Amino acid sequence: MTIIITAFERSPDGGKGLARDTRIRWALEEVGQPYEVRLVSFSAMKQAAHLALHPFGQIPTYEEGDLVLFETGAIVFHIAERHAGLLPEDANARARAIMWMFAALSTMEPPILELTTARLLEGDRSWAAQRMPLVADRVRNRLGPLSHHFGDADWLDGAFSAGDLMMVSVLLRVKASGLLDDTPNLAAYVARGEARPAYKRACDAQLAVAGNQQIG
Amino acid sequence: MTIIITAFERSPDGGKGLARDTRIRWALEEVGQPYEVRLVSFSAMKQAAHLALHPFGQIPTYEEGDLVLFETGAIVFHIAERHAGLLPEDANARARAIMWMFAALSTMEPPILELTTARLLEGDRSWAAQRMPLVADRVRNRLGPLSHHFGDADWLDGAFSAGDLMMVSVLLRVKASGLLDDTPNLAAYVARGEARPAYKRACDAQLAVAGNQQIG
Repeated sequence: MTIIITAFERSPDGGKGLARDTRIRWALEEVGQPYEVRLVSFSAMKQAAHLALHPFGQIPTYEEGDLVLFETGAIVFHIAERHAGLLPEDANARARAIMWMFAALSTMEPPILELTTARLLEGDRSWAAQRMPLVADRVRNRLGPLSHHFGDADWLDGAFSAGDLMMVSVLLRVKASGLLDDTPNLAAYVARGEARPAYKRACDAQLAVAGNQQIG
Repeated sequence: MTIIITAFERSPDGGKGLARDTRIRWALEEVGQPYEVRLVSFSAMKQAAHLALHPFGQIPTYEEGDLVLFETGAIVFHIAERHAGLLPEDANARARAIMWMFAALSTMEPPILELTTARLLEGDRSWAAQRMPLVADRVRNRLGPLSHHFGDADWLDGAFSAGDLMMVSVLLRVKASGLLDDTPNLAAYVARGEARPAYKRACDAQLAVAGNQQIG
């Protein structure tokens, strides 16, 4: 069955890989599954046809025969469960890989997203300059323990897994802030993720969308 | 194998059910699995023995033989995958139930937690009164689409699932703010969750910890 995902017609980051369809593309590339992409404009995302796929009017979505999914974590997990390459076979190691997926999305990503929210949605408010250090400290309070736990490992728990795919994707969002500089082992971890051929293919595919728009 | 979870020795909410061990207790009650609880003080949570179980120094954790897990979503999923009662058998319905678990934790909970963060950690700042309406609007921006999608259903997708367990648990956190009043169908949904015998048993067990402390 053909896999169809949705992505931004015009990504806010110009195709630099921070839009969440990158995570789905990366997972599909890791397991070697072809897929098609339907591009969605910001206005179309809020219209009935797209809301029927994604009640919150966002991207990405995932269609495969009768199955329609939204929510990046759930889509990556679905791909990982059905195709070899993203979850270990050992039951306990598999449970831990899933644990790291949830940790990336529930523990690490919220304060990291708040960095962007504070800048984009409150950057012009009177409190912006005073508040930003508090927001940055909350990110440091997550990066510190993760870095301590990670030590000099290559990946979170043995071989590369869907947990790493999600954690690297989340940490990529903090890269531009400079906060990763305090945790060189996590900076190296992110670079290790970015160096994976499947990640590069995912990014190239996303960048091609942005490139076509500049030409077209 | 005995299941051991950790919980606050003294819950910040006095045992009202908002601590995350409630979600684990509820899942275990739904599937009829007995469990033991090890209470952890705030200082012990940051010490090496507990950090070995939970790198971010929080509760709950889950131990079952050789398996150690943290992250509430991952623990509930582990329980749901191994015992009947929390995930549908049909493959597509199962994928959608997992999708709603992720949606509860990744899409709904971050702005809801920010309500608490803004009050507890920034309530004494000069911008607190001006900023709070922005934070509340972000919660409304999630509750509105969820309510629209939910309609007059009983649960998110057919029968009660781990997705509902997680969504109700997350929405319980917004109850005290009054924001649920604008979405009566979601308020009724939360009440439906609270009325489940398994939820009541989980809350009673948590409240008993707080009660014992008041006596002891």
